[in-house]
Amino acid sequence: MSLTVVGSIAFDAVKTPFGEREKMLGGSAVHFSLAASFFTDVRVVGPVGDDFGDAEYGVLHGRGVNTDDIEHVEGGDTFFWKGHYEFDLNTAHTDDTQLNVFGDFDPKLSEESKAADTLFLANIQPDLQREVREQAPDAGRVGLDSMNLWIETARDSLEKTISGVDLVFMNDAEIRMFTEEPNLLHAARKIIDLGPRAVIAKQGEYGAALYAPDEFFALPAYPLESVNDPTGAGDSFAGGFLGYLDSQDDAEDTGALRRAMTYGSTLASFNVEDFGTERVARLTREEVEERFDEFKAMTSFEVVEA
Amino acid sequence: MSLTVVGSIAFDAVKTPFGEREKMLGGSAVHFSLAASFFTDVRVVGPVGDDFGDAEYGVLHGRGVNTDDIEHVEGGDTFFWKGHYEFDLNTAHTDDTQLNVFGDFDPKLSEESKAADTLFLANIQPDLQREVREQAPDAGRVGLDSMNLWIETARDSLEKTISGVDLVFMNDAEIRMFTEEPNLLHAARKIIDLGPRAVIAKQGEYGAALYAPDEFFALPAYPLESVNDPTGAGDSFAGGFLGYLDSQDDAEDTGALRRAMTYGSTLASFNVEDFGTERVARLTREEVEERFDEFKAMTSFEVVEA
Repeated sequence: MSLTVVGSIAFDAVKTPFGEREKMLGGSAVHFSLAASFFTDVRVVGPVGDDFGDAEYGVLHGRGVNTDDIEHVEGGDTFFWKGHYEFDLNTAHTDDTQLNVFGDFDPKLSEESKAADTLFLANIQPDLQREVREQAPDAGRVGLDSMNLWIETARDSLEKTISGVDLVFMNDAEIRMFTEEPNLLHAARKIIDLGPRAVIAKQGEYGAALYAPDEFFALPAYPLESVNDPTGAGDSFAGGFLGYLDSQDDAEDTGALRRAMTYGSTLASFNVEDFGTERVARLTREEVEERFDEFKAMTSFEVVEA
Repeated sequence: MSLTVVGSIAFDAVKTPFGEREKMLGGSAVHFSLAASFFTDVRVVGPVGDDFGDAEYGVLHGRGVNTDDIEHVEGGDTFFWKGHYEFDLNTAHTDDTQLNVFGDFDPKLSEESKAADTLFLANIQPDLQREVREQAPDAGRVGLDSMNLWIETARDSLEKTISGVDLVFMNDAEIRMFTEEPNLLHAARKIIDLGPRAVIAKQGEYGAALYAPDEFFALPAYPLESVNDPTGAGDSFAGGFLGYLDSQDDAEDTGALRRAMTYGSTLASFNVEDFGTERVARLTREEVEERFDEFKAMTSFEVVEA
């Protein structure tokens, strides 16, 4: 079992009502791979600049993530994102984006990365996602994330890319926007009609829902005492989800998919407890299992004969 | 076991992207009592005018609701609300409100209504809610709904009223607004500190969450093929919740509260399938139980040893 993720590796500057960081490790491929590392072998593919050093590699290696396919671009700077959140933490406001080495990113997968059982195409331009997908034709399970920008500027390409993957991770608003369908059940079916096996609707503070033919499953978010920084929650969710699924023999099974939803929610819940990767970097598998069990406890009820 | 609800009885004019009605039976006490009627004996208290006739009484009697305490105001017109919903159905836009007989509503509970085991104070001015509550000091379980208008214009009164009830039903935004606390977990605790035993956060298309000391439970909304009119969903939820709880001997039990959440969600899901009371009026107990079981199926997952 092995998993390759292709996407952004970044430095983030983030300000929330609960604190701020001027330059911390971030990027969708980073959040994803740290979360997935609790369940399977992970390789991360993406470009970095000269400013990406031992401390950053250390976080990834600390979780056993293979960084051989991180491409170091000499003389360049790592992708930089600056943003802030207001009172309710639901919306990220972008203050600055410096693509830097990410602007010329032309992903090339090594033989090892191509050989992964599971491939995740984090949120990058859909043409690039498709190129990556074509480099790994034998990947048995391919997931994809996207965003409103690509729906607006590259819809046809995104549709083509989606038709070649198995699992689509998008938030509610993006699913509605992409399908032009307000009812999420119908919207998810429209995406499934393009080819994917399932659609996972990310719903922020309300959790997540899984749509597949003859299958619906939904899970609330974990009720957290403190949320400090929501950046990367969606990628941590996808990482927990696909990492767990990659580790399972019966991964096509409904039960495995539902547990994947729960592990995804578990990792996302830890991710937001602290800034950037700080919480997940010091997370233990034991804590993961404890919270998984809490999800079970807080969603269970008994049917009693009326 | 018996339940009394005090609140508005109305005619509604509603337009949604899926159709419209120019004058149909509505009002929070009506939606609540129809939903609760599947589980227990219900008495509805509220004023109506000369335009409220056999057809309207017929809907309530059809579900066995006791209407003896509906006060007919001679020469008056029934409360009228006109509103519309846009594309996503999440927000009700009010186009017209005619309080009519509801403007002078001075609720007086009959001995039978005062004797109810469970009392629901639907969304009316909090001074009135408190007067009603004081008329029924022996009610063993009192629930309350409110809205942004009273938080803005009668906060102190609302706080006093909330301190005298057991169960608070509000939507997320109202809970945050009332407590001035963005974290829902902390916000719910602030309300519980005032006196109530539990707070039920209504979350529209995302379902509902229950907060009580040492207890958290959340349930997604049912994934509906078609939502035609969300009007009354919150009251149907509270009706299903309190109606079920009123019917239980072990109503203080966590299991009963969680099943109440599920029956509430079940009734709300039916309510929105058609305009006004149309769907719930023709609903059967068998359909209720079927959907309850579907809620169980769509939220269950197994814990497997890692």
